[in-house]
Amino acid sequence: MTLLAFNLLNSGVTLSMVCAVVGLVFAIFLIAAILRASPGNERMRQISGAIQEGAKAYLQRQVITISAIAAVLFVLLFIYKDRSTAIGFVIGAFCSLAAGYIGMRIAVLANTRTTQAASSSCLAALRIAFNGGAVTGLLVVGLALLAVGSFYHIAVRIIGPDAAVRSLVGLALGASLISVFARLGGGIYTKAADVGADLVGKIEKNLEEDDPRNPATIADNVGDNVGDCAGMAADVFETYAVSLIGAILVGALTLATEPAAVVYPFVLGGISVLGAICGIFFVSVARAKPATVLMGAVGTSALVSAILFWPATHQLFPNGIMIGGFRRSANDLYFASLIGLLMTGIVVLITNYFTSMRYRPVQTIARASETGHATNIIAGLAVGQHATALPVGFIGIAILLSFHFAGLYGIAIAVMSMLSMAGIIISLDAFGPITDNAGGIAVMSNLPREVRAVTDELDAVGNTMKAVTKGYAIASAGLAALVLFGSYVEELKVHLMRNGEPFSFQFSLTEPRVIIGLFIGGLLPFIFTAFSMDAVGKAAGAVVREVRRQLQVHPGILTGQDTPEYGTCVDIVTKAALREMIIPALLPVAFVVAVAMIKPLGPVVLGGMLVGTIVTGLFVAIAMTSSGGAWDNAKKFIEEGNFGGKGSFAHAAAVTGDTVGDPYKDTAGPAINPMIKVVNIMAILIIPIFF
Amino acid sequence: MTLLAFNLLNSGVTLSMVCAVVGLVFAIFLIAAILRASPGNERMRQISGAIQEGAKAYLQRQVITISAIAAVLFVLLFIYKDRSTAIGFVIGAFCSLAAGYIGMRIAVLANTRTTQAASSSCLAALRIAFNGGAVTGLLVVGLALLAVGSFYHIAVRIIGPDAAVRSLVGLALGASLISVFARLGGGIYTKAADVGADLVGKIEKNLEEDDPRNPATIADNVGDNVGDCAGMAADVFETYAVSLIGAILVGALTLATEPAAVVYPFVLGGISVLGAICGIFFVSVARAKPATVLMGAVGTSALVSAILFWPATHQLFPNGIMIGGFRRSANDLYFASLIGLLMTGIVVLITNYFTSMRYRPVQTIARASETGHATNIIAGLAVGQHATALPVGFIGIAILLSFHFAGLYGIAIAVMSMLSMAGIIISLDAFGPITDNAGGIAVMSNLPREVRAVTDELDAVGNTMKAVTKGYAIASAGLAALVLFGSYVEELKVHLMRNGEPFSFQFSLTEPRVIIGLFIGGLLPFIFTAFSMDAVGKAAGAVVREVRRQLQVHPGILTGQDTPEYGTCVDIVTKAALREMIIPALLPVAFVVAVAMIKPLGPVVLGGMLVGTIVTGLFVAIAMTSSGGAWDNAKKFIEEGNFGGKGSFAHAAAVTGDTVGDPYKDTAGPAINPMIKVVNIMAILIIPIFF
Repeated sequence: MTLLAFNLLNSGVTLSMVCAVVGLVFAIFLIAAILRASPGNERMRQISGAIQEGAKAYLQRQVITISAIAAVLFVLLFIYKDRSTAIGFVIGAFCSLAAGYIGMRIAVLANTRTTQAASSSCLAALRIAFNGGAVTGLLVVGLALLAVGSFYHIAVRIIGPDAAVRSLVGLALGASLISVFARLGGGIYTKAADVGADLVGKIEKNLEEDDPRNPATIADNVGDNVGDCAGMAADVFETYAVSLIGAILVGALTLATEPAAVVYPFVLGGISVLGAICGIFFVSVARAKPATVLMGAVGTSALVSAILFWPATHQLFPNGIMIGGFRRSANDLYFASLIGLLMTGIVVLITNYFTSMRYRPVQTIARASETGHATNIIAGLAVGQHATALPVGFIGIAILLSFHFAGLYGIAIAVMSMLSMAGIIISLDAFGPITDNAGGIAVMSNLPREVRAVTDELDAVGNTMKAVTKGYAIASAGLAALVLFGSYVEELKVHLMRNGEPFSFQFSLTEPRVIIGLFIGGLLPFIFTAFSMDAVGKAAGAVVREVRRQLQVHPGILTGQDTPEYGTCVDIVTKAALREMIIPALLPVAFVVAVAMIKPLGPVVLGGMLVGTIVTGLFVAIAMTSSGGAWDNAKKFIEEGNFGGKGSFAHAAAVTGDTVGDPYKDTAGPAINPMIKVVNIMAILIIPIFF
Repeated sequence: MTLLAFNLLNSGVTLSMVCAVVGLVFAIFLIAAILRASPGNERMRQISGAIQEGAKAYLQRQVITISAIAAVLFVLLFIYKDRSTAIGFVIGAFCSLAAGYIGMRIAVLANTRTTQAASSSCLAALRIAFNGGAVTGLLVVGLALLAVGSFYHIAVRIIGPDAAVRSLVGLALGASLISVFARLGGGIYTKAADVGADLVGKIEKNLEEDDPRNPATIADNVGDNVGDCAGMAADVFETYAVSLIGAILVGALTLATEPAAVVYPFVLGGISVLGAICGIFFVSVARAKPATVLMGAVGTSALVSAILFWPATHQLFPNGIMIGGFRRSANDLYFASLIGLLMTGIVVLITNYFTSMRYRPVQTIARASETGHATNIIAGLAVGQHATALPVGFIGIAILLSFHFAGLYGIAIAVMSMLSMAGIIISLDAFGPITDNAGGIAVMSNLPREVRAVTDELDAVGNTMKAVTKGYAIASAGLAALVLFGSYVEELKVHLMRNGEPFSFQFSLTEPRVIIGLFIGGLLPFIFTAFSMDAVGKAAGAVVREVRRQLQVHPGILTGQDTPEYGTCVDIVTKAALREMIIPALLPVAFVVAVAMIKPLGPVVLGGMLVGTIVTGLFVAIAMTSSGGAWDNAKKFIEEGNFGGKGSFAHAAAVTGDTVGDPYKDTAGPAINPMIKVVNIMAILIIPIFF
């Protein structure tokens, strides 16, 4: 590496780390603002405390379980790979866990304060909830930039640039694998508690959501924090880190002579932290409907990034860059980065259309509820499948265009630019569980109806935002995984050439091994989600049995004379979630190792498998998360008084849809996202071990 | 073509046509045996007459609608392709329609006789119902062999062997496209009537299945015949014809110097007619449980075929065959054909496990019904997804092995051998709707409880058999489509070389166009099924409104004083089904033409798209048909007295699952099967038009 290259690397990465620190400082400022708000009366603080305690207890036990698995993998990596990869793995795993923990902690601070603010105005509540989410967003993005940046920085000095790039794959694996666990564990927890609480509470006993007489209600609210907050934060941390690392891999492997190619993804990430801060600032000054304010924040953020990307790109690539024998201009790269920003906007708008109660899809499901449970389910499943068309179409266009501008590196840049929006997008996502909790606290503290009306309105917006960010997460995950597949092929080439073997793989569709790989890979999302849903079913069954037991032993609970034992429910879900997450989380690892180990399969089948997982994973994940979001809001639409309103036959059917949608949108669907990447990263990592 | 080759072609194809005629004669003998049985009392004959009338009326209107579309396509083919392809298209379309019509006519003859036989013994009823199905099976297979064989025979004489092979693609398109329409039209009809009847009858008014007071009950029984019989017969006719043509294409294109390669698929088909006759004979002598007898018939049939394939293969290929520069022995080809037979058995066993009430998956769904509608749905969806793993795994092994034995031709032979079992497999499938109708007639004619008990038992077996044959149909369709994809690549090569253009396509996964093609193709099954489910929802809504209207205007219907107007329900479903089938059925055609026409996409994207459709189509179809079958039998399992039995909370939940499963297993899922092939055949056909 030349001195010039080293300096460029230094200055670019340092710049992005400065931006990350700015983001962290701003996050601390936001935390202070949240803490200044009133946490409400004693009853509210008590409930919030119980939720916080349950969430902490769960996450601590999750950390122990996951650490044990991570320790085994660390040892294996240490033995079969090398020290730096193993260390990278630990750093990635630690940061992924930390991101989840932080997300949860902030959320439980913000929830009761949102409830309190809801008694003054909708906008005030919106801002507290959003700022809570924004803290998570900034911390996750800052953490990712700092972790990847400083690890890479140090590794380059100690083991040289080539080995440094390779050990980043370890960091990516750590982040991805842990986030599969966090997504699944949290997802199983939140939906087992939710489904369990609803099945007995709403359907058998006619209790309202969050009724304090329901023994599973605290567990349900804990679930929002460990699933939607902690799980999601770990997931987006992982997507961000992996996209960054993917771009570095492509930059370093295929463009070895162009050091700026490695720096560019860092710079994009750094700049977008500033964009996110502008978006967050927008929310605290804008005055409009909640959904409009939030969409405005995304727009502001994207606009600022788009403007700042231009000078940065021209500064880094004054003479363009050589890719595949052609010189591409700085503008070509800039256009690739714009595609990522545009994709974010497009995916957000599309998912919003399919899951917001203002549009036809959700209303169709609500109407279908009038004829019963079954037609509600059929309509919801169909909406989810319809929802796959546009995102996949636009992903295709994005691939075509960004490849046109700068080959595989162009795709990597588009992905990184898309992910650079994560700061503001997480703010929207984390907003959902905070408002959900705020509503729960309002009901459990017997606050006036108006307060609940405000939190209900925000909750409906939060549902759509959660669905929207899931669409974003899966679309970006699909693109990131394609970049990783490209890295797999490059790594395989380098590895075989180093061993003196010819690289004759075409990964051609006319080769039966590729087709078989596509089938094996295509299978993975199907059985992964099947196992995940089974897990929710089993864990929810345990909750149902416990709730029924409590109501039978203490009939006074329903009349309000006895207090339910919330703690036992929390305990049961905790154990069940941790037990049930293991098998599905280890499936992708097992698949990759099995295909690599079985001799007649080998690297070609593995390559086909990576693409197969991406293809079906994308469809299954979009369909599941969209169906789930749409079912949820169809129920809310009916509860607003349409098609008979609460308590009607249509409402009962809509509750069924919502319950089916729970594991769809919060457990199985979003967990596909890190799973796709685990498969691809594992494949890169095992090349030198098996081939 | 040498004289020797011509003689070989003549004698081999003639042999297979003789076998086909033997099958047809045996079918006539079976029809006579069915007609000899008593059709029951006057009331039973009346009901059966009403069903027959409704089915005929629907199919006649379906023929008119489809003929109009077929006429347009005929003209387009005539103008843009050539005369012989257009004529082939008409023959394929006509035979597909005829197969459906025949299937329906036989079923309505057998249903009332099965009811009558059920009053004497279960075995007698089983035999009548099975023989009804067997007639359809033999007629469909015989028709396919005769149509393809004689068309090819004549075309070779008139336009020469090369053009004859190409015009067979027209025949395949005619068969496939019409069968998409028949599957969808019939599927929408049967499930709209079924769901509509259940929603008002079972759920709102607490009527039993087939209660004569339900105005939609005749429409429901008509649906069994036009969907499960006519639609299925058209579908399997198509799969058979396309597999045969696919094998001929591969044989003729890649093995031009080996005339026996073209004859071999015909011979396999012909021999298996004899195998099917042995299997049918087995049913009329065996004495055991219904499911055991039917499985025994499949085993007998496969065994006879496996034995006869051996001398036939050695006779045709005394010196083996040159494939890809290597000589393969007759045994290599024989092993490839055995793989097809084995796959049939394996897929049948696997699907049986996932959908029979004797095993864990169905019982898990039944248990989940205890906690309500939502958990029943979640469990059912998960079972469907789990059910994809083993079939896809075995398909992978089958591809690997048959390719190992004889390259792409080996896969084609395995597919043809798998399809050669269609005669016996249709016999099982058509058995389902006949027993379903028999049960309906028993209830509507107020026959004693014991009779209904027999028809119920047979109906449960029929449900599993229907699911089993769907698994078989989709697995063979996936393999057949892969063969067609191989033909697409070969055709493209020949076409471009003829135009003097270089053939430089690798269809490599590292090429973004291939990935985009995989995405576009992967999308097709998702939105195809989404549109299909929407169609069922809309048509069922129309039925619900009509039934509610009748019950409101004539309250005497429920007390038995007024007779419902069955005819208006039949009429409404007929119109709705024909209207709603158009959009989804034309989707695959539109996709292929659009991808071919849009310049930046072109032949590489189209190639990726073909494979993408096969990959996701396989998973979606298996998951949907398995879920549907499992839900249906979970309900039956509860009705047998488990988990509270009929009328319990669990039963209500199981009815919801069954209703969701209806469009899954009888409309959307099975229609994917011909749809996959339409896409692949269309692609082959349009090569000379667009590229």
